Amino acid sequence: MTLSHEDDVKMLLSAFERRLEQLLPEGEQEGQVYAAMREATLVAGKRMRPLLLLLAATDMGYKTEQTGVLDLACAIEMVHVASLILDDMPCMDNAMLRRGRPTVHCQYGEHVAILAAVALLSHAFCVISRAPSLTPEAKARAIAELSASVGHMGLVQGQFRDLNGARQSLNTDEILLTNELKTSSLFNATLQLAAIAAEASPQVSERLHFFARDLGQAFQLIDDLTDGSTSTGKDPHQDKDKSTLVAVLGAETVFLRLREHVRSADQHIATACQPGNTARHYVHAWFEKQLMLISHSLSLSPSECQ
Amino acid sequence: MTLSHEDDVKMLLSAFERRLEQLLPEGEQEGQVYAAMREATLVAGKRMRPLLLLLAATDMGYKTEQTGVLDLACAIEMVHVASLILDDMPCMDNAMLRRGRPTVHCQYGEHVAILAAVALLSHAFCVISRAPSLTPEAKARAIAELSASVGHMGLVQGQFRDLNGARQSLNTDEILLTNELKTSSLFNATLQLAAIAAEASPQVSERLHFFARDLGQAFQLIDDLTDGSTSTGKDPHQDKDKSTLVAVLGAETVFLRLREHVRSADQHIATACQPGNTARHYVHAWFEKQLMLISHSLSLSPSECQ
Repeated sequence: MTLSHEDDVKMLLSAFERRLEQLLPEGEQEGQVYAAMREATLVAGKRMRPLLLLLAATDMGYKTEQTGVLDLACAIEMVHVASLILDDMPCMDNAMLRRGRPTVHCQYGEHVAILAAVALLSHAFCVISRAPSLTPEAKARAIAELSASVGHMGLVQGQFRDLNGARQSLNTDEILLTNELKTSSLFNATLQLAAIAAEASPQVSERLHFFARDLGQAFQLIDDLTDGSTSTGKDPHQDKDKSTLVAVLGAETVFLRLREHVRSADQHIATACQPGNTARHYVHAWFEKQLMLISHSLSLSPSECQ
Repeated sequence: MTLSHEDDVKMLLSAFERRLEQLLPEGEQEGQVYAAMREATLVAGKRMRPLLLLLAATDMGYKTEQTGVLDLACAIEMVHVASLILDDMPCMDNAMLRRGRPTVHCQYGEHVAILAAVALLSHAFCVISRAPSLTPEAKARAIAELSASVGHMGLVQGQFRDLNGARQSLNTDEILLTNELKTSSLFNATLQLAAIAAEASPQVSERLHFFARDLGQAFQLIDDLTDGSTSTGKDPHQDKDKSTLVAVLGAETVFLRLREHVRSADQHIATACQPGNTARHYVHAWFEKQLMLISHSLSLSPSECQ
């Protein structure tokens, strides 16, 4: 990754954070629900989904001076944050820490957590429906994609299967489907929104769908492999009772699978997005770092993580 | 209300129920979340919001053979059902009964209740974004209206204030604002969606906004006045710890206010929707029945409920 590419990423990230702040303005609203919405969203996470959306849209020819795509990125992050708030609830994963801070229900109570998540989810659709410099057709398509990725065939079903995996043993295929629903769904919506904004061809959309599938699986495997770590900002060993691929296949086999998903993801995005290849570089650099960290913690030789 | 008007309402209701069933098809999906979504939605409630949307759109000239408006009505009902599922949760109203049956979290657990509500909410936006015979402009406007009515300035904020009203004493103005957010917001979205489908003028939209405000307040007052009744399908005395207008002003004064809201609502809808006046007739007949029942239970003389 060159210095100028890093600078590009920083500029996009900073434009994104500014726009997110504008879409959840300070001081105009009252009450705990709004405070919870703002705090949960504005605490900087990895911002991987919005960055990926912005980079991919740019690679596919969308002019990022047009703010519409920034609004799509903000909507994706709002949905992501809403899903994290709910996943952390006592009746779900019962987590105390998220992004290094107390989870929303710990800080504000369960009722505020549910209401803040619902408000963020609704706000995401509102933001898309009002996004500047996007045609009404693009807005309707983007909302169809995003809502489908959340619902009973997406995130929601993934979370339900994930919880059930803590109550019964799942086999490899069942775990892969859970991971796809839980993680690939929103990555897919992220990339489809970039494709819609950039008016990409159906072939490119399809390629991005394959990329999102690999990306989601890889992401989930990294999450499973680092579950015991305290550096994630989350409760360590959160998944200890769940059916994960690490529990079923062992860490070394999962690491090999992870590398395979990373390689396959790279091939798909290389075909889908070209000019500056910024999305590809970004994902490559991120995975390289993760693979290195994990290989160290698993005590694999350096060559095994190439 | 003439027999033919009743028949019209029945026909619309039956078209609505058929379409709702199509949008949540049996057998194609697996799992508890989907079962909970279907059951909660397909148990017939009053269907007041979808009927009002369909009748108002017809009065304003929308051809109901076009199925787009049916989809808008289904989306409104999905959002309404999602809000009921969440309102009933232990951390909210902790209700056991809804529409005469066990609440979703009692039947399926809290995690399924939250996930089913989120999936219904998302599905509502999906349904609008894919509605036939509606322009992309109309879809984007409808989604902006509906999402705004749910979020931190609508239903969500109303529910938060309602819960807080159980923890502290509110004055009359505060209770009125809570009622407006909790009940008028979604009625307003209902009527604005009808106006968007029928391409009504901004003046008509504004008048419908005033109508929705009165309707929501009247609806909430009826809910408060009938809280002790077992015939509502809900837990009786659910609101006993809440700040309601009945608790602050007494039932008789609230009954007078209710009649005033009903009268004002009637004036607004008479101006906004004309040709068959079917929405006006429907609302009038519904309120007449409620006023009669309440006046009997409060032992008011018949003249006082005219």
